[in-house]
Amino acid sequence: MYRSHTCGELNAASIGQEVKLSGWVQKIRDKGFMVWVDLRDRYGITQLIFDEERSSTELMEKAQKLGREFVIQVSGKVIERESKNTNIPTGEIEVLVTEVTILNTSLTPPFTIEDETDGGEDLRMKYRYLDIRRNPVKNKLKFRHKVGMEVRNYLSNQDFIEVETPYLIKSTPEGARDFVVPSRMNEGQFYALPQSPQTFKQLLMVGGMDKYFQIVKCFRDEDLRADRQPEFTQIDCEMAFVEQEDILNIFEGLTRHLLKEINGVEVADFPRMTYAEAMKKYGNDKPDIRFGMEFAELNDLAKNKGFNVFDQQELVVGIAVPGAASFTRKEIDKLISWVKRPQVGANGLVWAKYNEDGTLKSSVDKFYSEEDLKTWAEATSAKPGDLILVMAGDANKTRTQLSALRMHLGNELGLRKADEFAPLWVVDFPLLEWDEDTQRFHAMHHPFTSPKKEDFALLESKPGEVRANAYDLVLNGNEIGGGSIRIHDKETQSKMFDYLGFTPEEAKAQFGFLMDAFQYGAPPHGGLAFGFDRLVAILGGQESIRDFIAFPKNNNGRDVMIDAPAKLDEAQLKELHLQIDNQKEGSKDIHEK
Amino acid sequence: MYRSHTCGELNAASIGQEVKLSGWVQKIRDKGFMVWVDLRDRYGITQLIFDEERSSTELMEKAQKLGREFVIQVSGKVIERESKNTNIPTGEIEVLVTEVTILNTSLTPPFTIEDETDGGEDLRMKYRYLDIRRNPVKNKLKFRHKVGMEVRNYLSNQDFIEVETPYLIKSTPEGARDFVVPSRMNEGQFYALPQSPQTFKQLLMVGGMDKYFQIVKCFRDEDLRADRQPEFTQIDCEMAFVEQEDILNIFEGLTRHLLKEINGVEVADFPRMTYAEAMKKYGNDKPDIRFGMEFAELNDLAKNKGFNVFDQQELVVGIAVPGAASFTRKEIDKLISWVKRPQVGANGLVWAKYNEDGTLKSSVDKFYSEEDLKTWAEATSAKPGDLILVMAGDANKTRTQLSALRMHLGNELGLRKADEFAPLWVVDFPLLEWDEDTQRFHAMHHPFTSPKKEDFALLESKPGEVRANAYDLVLNGNEIGGGSIRIHDKETQSKMFDYLGFTPEEAKAQFGFLMDAFQYGAPPHGGLAFGFDRLVAILGGQESIRDFIAFPKNNNGRDVMIDAPAKLDEAQLKELHLQIDNQKEGSKDIHEK
Repeated sequence: MYRSHTCGELNAASIGQEVKLSGWVQKIRDKGFMVWVDLRDRYGITQLIFDEERSSTELMEKAQKLGREFVIQVSGKVIERESKNTNIPTGEIEVLVTEVTILNTSLTPPFTIEDETDGGEDLRMKYRYLDIRRNPVKNKLKFRHKVGMEVRNYLSNQDFIEVETPYLIKSTPEGARDFVVPSRMNEGQFYALPQSPQTFKQLLMVGGMDKYFQIVKCFRDEDLRADRQPEFTQIDCEMAFVEQEDILNIFEGLTRHLLKEINGVEVADFPRMTYAEAMKKYGNDKPDIRFGMEFAELNDLAKNKGFNVFDQQELVVGIAVPGAASFTRKEIDKLISWVKRPQVGANGLVWAKYNEDGTLKSSVDKFYSEEDLKTWAEATSAKPGDLILVMAGDANKTRTQLSALRMHLGNELGLRKADEFAPLWVVDFPLLEWDEDTQRFHAMHHPFTSPKKEDFALLESKPGEVRANAYDLVLNGNEIGGGSIRIHDKETQSKMFDYLGFTPEEAKAQFGFLMDAFQYGAPPHGGLAFGFDRLVAILGGQESIRDFIAFPKNNNGRDVMIDAPAKLDEAQLKELHLQIDNQKEGSKDIHEK
Repeated sequence: MYRSHTCGELNAASIGQEVKLSGWVQKIRDKGFMVWVDLRDRYGITQLIFDEERSSTELMEKAQKLGREFVIQVSGKVIERESKNTNIPTGEIEVLVTEVTILNTSLTPPFTIEDETDGGEDLRMKYRYLDIRRNPVKNKLKFRHKVGMEVRNYLSNQDFIEVETPYLIKSTPEGARDFVVPSRMNEGQFYALPQSPQTFKQLLMVGGMDKYFQIVKCFRDEDLRADRQPEFTQIDCEMAFVEQEDILNIFEGLTRHLLKEINGVEVADFPRMTYAEAMKKYGNDKPDIRFGMEFAELNDLAKNKGFNVFDQQELVVGIAVPGAASFTRKEIDKLISWVKRPQVGANGLVWAKYNEDGTLKSSVDKFYSEEDLKTWAEATSAKPGDLILVMAGDANKTRTQLSALRMHLGNELGLRKADEFAPLWVVDFPLLEWDEDTQRFHAMHHPFTSPKKEDFALLESKPGEVRANAYDLVLNGNEIGGGSIRIHDKETQSKMFDYLGFTPEEAKAQFGFLMDAFQYGAPPHGGLAFGFDRLVAILGGQESIRDFIAFPKNNNGRDVMIDAPAKLDEAQLKELHLQIDNQKEGSKDIHEK
């Protein structure tokens, strides 16, 4: 047996016990006559003591030769510590070592195994197994496990059944790119890895499973933006014989349960907001409602007052930044540069200070009287001490730009508190969105989403205005879940594929099995999926998902630790009936010869 | 709201209630003046009644037009049933329908949606979504979920942490073939899908996670034998600072817990048997110990008695078949033909009947006296009424053949009872096994398995005799789990790769990251993995895994429902820098031109 106790469990009550511990050498303090070692394992740190007066010379020498991250096993007696550390559970005791065995040595680690490390991102990823030894990473993985268990137990108690759907499925050209898997046994053919188990969960509903969930890996071969992973985890759910209201209630319950069990936070009923309202009030379909700063449309108040810049624009819109009237000219200029960056792309920013003394002063005093500015203050709900910021331009673009500014200020002013949780349902998403590149409508959610009955008539005349039975769960400005009530009859589904530009042949080749299934008594159904990586990160008070993933990939989709992807050998390619198409190198060869 | 109750919850206590139900039409009995409909959902069946005297004409007509598997919603009143069915929970009531809505129609299903269906395997797979509506399949999926929940909760309560390891990893030529995934962003390079998370779980131990588990999909591109799937699910576990004994105890605990919670069976301490003993006693490294019939080696008793057939052979070995002395000549001949089939490949079978009256009679009476046969009976522990069956030949082959016969008889005689559970640890597996094809030793478990310290010296001289710290958990003649204590130092791991025929360069290219990790304080560790599909099937009293998988693939690795794998279009291939290597078609073209 390697240990009688872990390094986290001995305390004052253990004094006098003979114990055996195993773990890593976290720290050594060698005073010559005495050596202290901090021994670390997953559960905590226990201080070991070697003492010239109480330990053999041989043992002292052994102790002095230990190095950081050596793996050792010790036997000894739990004794009271002289200088107690009340910050850790084991801080009142130490173990007077009688025997030490080195189980493994260690090279000097490439970065310090401490809560604050000197290792940069790249080094930490290459030696991820050392990074995981650090508390911040280890605790995030433990946290993820805890959230996963809570989700599973909650849903299982609600009669949901976890069903594993296949990973080797069929490629569909719709949506993001698939990762594909060549089949050796079926020459020239490929499986695809699922972007989500969407069609399978719908088939489970056709199959009468009624309430399905799965915590499942999904795959998307997209050009990776920061904090996206080619493989990610989803809590995937589907229910039959439900309306939107039933689904919102169930998953509001789940989210409330998680906030309570994991974060100890009780949340009231989740507010609901239509997509149209969210765009109008926050310029964003996933607004962070923890801090006000709602948009106020100022067209009526700011146009036709001689200020050409506003007069020409579709929309003039402002926000009140709490307590920011005290911003210096320099601070305001910084904001103006910030919105002018290409990432935001605004033309500029008009500001008006609502001073503490009730006076108003703006960057456009030439065109607007204090009386005018007062109406802006009323519209934006600005109070004395606040700063009003106004943008103008094309309605959609301007809303997006002002939303970016609002979030930026929320971060800068510390208004987005990690321990405050404000969930929100955004409902009534548009069914279709116009794509400039392909010059046609795409499904905003996915092609299986049902349009609202009352908007069905608009499909021919005003497709962009048709609302879907689609909803997102937003938490603190992040979309953590989204779903819809699905189409469940073949006719509507065919029509939808038609609207989306599929030929009947394409629709049949890709989704024939689903439309077939709809002919054999498909029940009304709907569901949603949570992004598990992001959910866990946000419950953990963080916005970056990377440290909540044990072995993440970098922005080129590479695992730098194992150095994947990598080349295959020729024999393996041959077996798969594949050749690498390196035309560039090929044509280069010709020219060089 | 689609329903106030499910179809499984109304009973005598509900009489008088107004209810709303939704579900599928399972059965219609139309007597003209009365129509009964069995309405089915996931939870059960409720009888609906439409009655000329109590229902409107319009409603009667609607009822008469319903078809099998139509999806309907009904409102009505719970009333007492005239002829009660005490076999189902809802059998005392029926619902007098006041309103019916057809939510979806159904074509006539291609097979009957009944416990016993008229659909063959192929049809059931093509319309798997209909197959899942059938109780036997639905219940197996529910059962699987229950087992999964029990496993997770048990391990989590034992401080294990579920960590998700990556699916897009690196291909390794060792072992079975990998499925690979071309990378679009890294031209000409491939990921591989994991055959197991082996190296990652070991890295988690290096990372100090201590106790890891994961229920995870794994992938093997093997030529599929019956009841193997290209994607399968594993309960993958690893622990640090443990010896073999610790691991056996933990997972014996898990298995005992499952048998108790799932099957209501209490099992005593699991017996342990060495690999050598299992081979000697049962000719099999996964013996079904529910029925005796242990092997008795008869060399001393049966050789040198003038029976040439035995004298020439390495091993003479027998079993006693309980109660089979009454077998007719015809029945025995059938057994002899059975062992002579190419699948078994034996030369023949010698038999001796130990009659109820104590006399003995054999097929080799010419060579053996009744006294001789008595010694066989003693050796095989045969009792009066038993049949002794004896085989002879090369030791290993003969053991395998007799084991096949023993299992065949176990099945034929009904000795392998689905509700009886006999777990067993088989330990001390050989480290290496000789491969005739490649003319070298292969790792029997995998290259990370540690040899027994006391056998280390034999590695050079007698590699085939080195025992490993490797163990299998066997349940009812099936290997349901297997694992080992791992190598945890770079030197031994390098040496192992060397023995297995890796060049140092190959070892570094494939597993450099692991050997690097071992240099930074790798703790002693070990683990095991359960085959989840099989475990669930066996706990469910079945040997076939297929119906415990929602959407299984056929023996060609195809999903016949969605028709995958399939061809990709040219653009997709181009993006992946791939060409199909159809040389056969190519050369054919040349000849035909």
